[in-house]
Amino acid sequence: MKKGNMLIAQSGGPSMVINQSLVGAVLAARDNKGIAKIYGALHGIQGILNEDFIDLKKENRKTLEAVANTPASALGSVRRKPTPEDCEAIFRVLLKLDVRYFFYIGGNDSAETVHIINEAAVKAEYAIHCFHIPKTIDNDLRENDHTPGYGSAARFVACAVKGDDLDNRALGGVKIDVIMGRNAGFLTAAAALARQDQDDGPHLVYLPERAFSVERFVRDVKSAMKKFGRCVVAVSEGIADKDGTPIVAKFTQETDSHGNVQLSGTGALGDLLAKALKERAGIARVRADTFGYLQRSFPGIASATDALEARLAGVAAVQAAVDEDVASGSVAIKRRPTKKYSAEFVVVPLRKVAKETRHMPDAFINKAGNHVTNAFIEYARPLVGALPPCARFEQLRGREVR
Amino acid sequence: MKKGNMLIAQSGGPSMVINQSLVGAVLAARDNKGIAKIYGALHGIQGILNEDFIDLKKENRKTLEAVANTPASALGSVRRKPTPEDCEAIFRVLLKLDVRYFFYIGGNDSAETVHIINEAAVKAEYAIHCFHIPKTIDNDLRENDHTPGYGSAARFVACAVKGDDLDNRALGGVKIDVIMGRNAGFLTAAAALARQDQDDGPHLVYLPERAFSVERFVRDVKSAMKKFGRCVVAVSEGIADKDGTPIVAKFTQETDSHGNVQLSGTGALGDLLAKALKERAGIARVRADTFGYLQRSFPGIASATDALEARLAGVAAVQAAVDEDVASGSVAIKRRPTKKYSAEFVVVPLRKVAKETRHMPDAFINKAGNHVTNAFIEYARPLVGALPPCARFEQLRGREVR
Repeated sequence: MKKGNMLIAQSGGPSMVINQSLVGAVLAARDNKGIAKIYGALHGIQGILNEDFIDLKKENRKTLEAVANTPASALGSVRRKPTPEDCEAIFRVLLKLDVRYFFYIGGNDSAETVHIINEAAVKAEYAIHCFHIPKTIDNDLRENDHTPGYGSAARFVACAVKGDDLDNRALGGVKIDVIMGRNAGFLTAAAALARQDQDDGPHLVYLPERAFSVERFVRDVKSAMKKFGRCVVAVSEGIADKDGTPIVAKFTQETDSHGNVQLSGTGALGDLLAKALKERAGIARVRADTFGYLQRSFPGIASATDALEARLAGVAAVQAAVDEDVASGSVAIKRRPTKKYSAEFVVVPLRKVAKETRHMPDAFINKAGNHVTNAFIEYARPLVGALPPCARFEQLRGREVR
Repeated sequence: MKKGNMLIAQSGGPSMVINQSLVGAVLAARDNKGIAKIYGALHGIQGILNEDFIDLKKENRKTLEAVANTPASALGSVRRKPTPEDCEAIFRVLLKLDVRYFFYIGGNDSAETVHIINEAAVKAEYAIHCFHIPKTIDNDLRENDHTPGYGSAARFVACAVKGDDLDNRALGGVKIDVIMGRNAGFLTAAAALARQDQDDGPHLVYLPERAFSVERFVRDVKSAMKKFGRCVVAVSEGIADKDGTPIVAKFTQETDSHGNVQLSGTGALGDLLAKALKERAGIARVRADTFGYLQRSFPGIASATDALEARLAGVAAVQAAVDEDVASGSVAIKRRPTKKYSAEFVVVPLRKVAKETRHMPDAFINKAGNHVTNAFIEYARPLVGALPPCARFEQLRGREVR
């Protein structure tokens, strides 16, 4: 393919390492003679439609490296699904700018956006490489063993629950932690990485993959209180009843243009569950925290493995497009079947990643549907890395303080 | 004073460094020939009343150091104000165990507890050294420049708001962060440490020291939206109306035995403020997060200065009691008038610290009552330390992305 310009943008919910992918792609492209200009579109497709760009060849290496280590989307993000009219408008801009390499970093909604644009390009016989670079803290992209952004968010969740469990040991009662994850329980499940001793929390883990019943929840907590004298619960914001209706959807109406109900940025679910326990189980001290946006944006605690893989995902997309001349696709992470953890990057068709999401496999969820299995712990541990060391007095180990 | 035993306990809300004070006191006491046994009472005065102890001479140095670096209260905590009957019962236990050194780590409620026990001891002519070791993330103890626990919680808040501000830049709208602090705004004010550039959030900071009006809040946010195209707000959980009624108290009734309304462990305030903005200001995207218990328990991110000072506060209490033979008191941190930050520890009378709390001085709050001053930033910065570096593209600096 002849020499052309490149355009890159970020979409969807930010993560702690999405800028690693951006910088990985930009640095790989700057080294490549097949690529002339590098446009960074602001706020995803909105920036393309508004022709709102920065020149990513102008930023110096030091700034790029500093941005790579900064959480959230440095180019700005957007939650907007392009209409057919949007796609036409996008093509006009891409043609005008002679863009031949288009990279879009995001989750399954973003993969769908790239897929739509690519299909339209094929139909219009416009020669362009359209690539999706994976990012989602939900870890719910198909074709991937795991996704950039997940390991760092999971690390935040594991650290938070570890500290919270120590706090709950000190003051007792029930603590409910509401964790992000619309359809997949991977992030909520990461709470279980906080456990070191047998009596450590979380004592219960509720995932969107299993139907949630308030009656069953109250019974489970009562049973844990009897056993441990206290209880720490990790709950996904996406838990739904047996008919698939999100528990929190009964209390909020707001949706985005992808038709998704607002689950984050509200404490409604935690407060609802706390109320149920106070009323139905007669437990006096019940507290609920909703971890919220901190899970995806807290600076300084990214997983080293996650940060590296996010960087390499960006590099892999540029290499496939330019060096290997692959027309289009989505970069996916595959885990190698080695004893020591290692991963590789492959390119898969866009339609295989777009739209639908994947869920926690059954092997990762316990039979009772209220915790994870060791198979999940073994899966997630290398993605998150070692947690900050925490210790208890030897005389108190194996004995609940309260 | 003749050789005697020591008893130490922890009380109130845990912090990231309260175990530093515990371990500081224990190690200082173990080195001291005036102290025989060291009892660690579990769950504060409750453990004394139930004679529930561990032997703190039995724990090895390695475990002690590991516990020191672990958040939350390793001996367990309690929220219980002793009755006159409790005090009598406590004396019987102290007499029986020949305890001559009593150390209690906690906030102003805990200082009051030590004060009550000390007064009763004086009345009963029982010779005992009663010391309060300061701890509160609220930073609201009188006689102190600042308190152990504050610097680390403030560090969590500053990091969280820094990441959250980057997240808000990416997706726009209004983000409300509800921060701990019942009566004093110090912790909420620490959100302002997140600011690097002129257009960085938090754009508004609401403290319990100033009467809160929803009308004024809506007006302030509208004005910030006009100026910055987005808005990040830091709000104290303890904000109250002009009559002193906490805004959130209108929505919850739960109180502890000190008569305090439950402010934490619920997302009610954030959701209420978000609703007000959606309805009255017509802003579509409003999100609220309540930082909750993570502020006091998140592992691995303690401020180095705070951790050291918490350790030294424990050491200072033992030194005063044993080496200097001071009868009773509360350890307080004073800042030296040096250019480079430095602090010293003094002993002040218990009654001066007990019960009442201190508030943000007027010099730390801007005239409009919706942000902090530079004087506060200069006060707080050395307690929190440098934050993880975050960067933006040079081409976007000084220009709001959205």
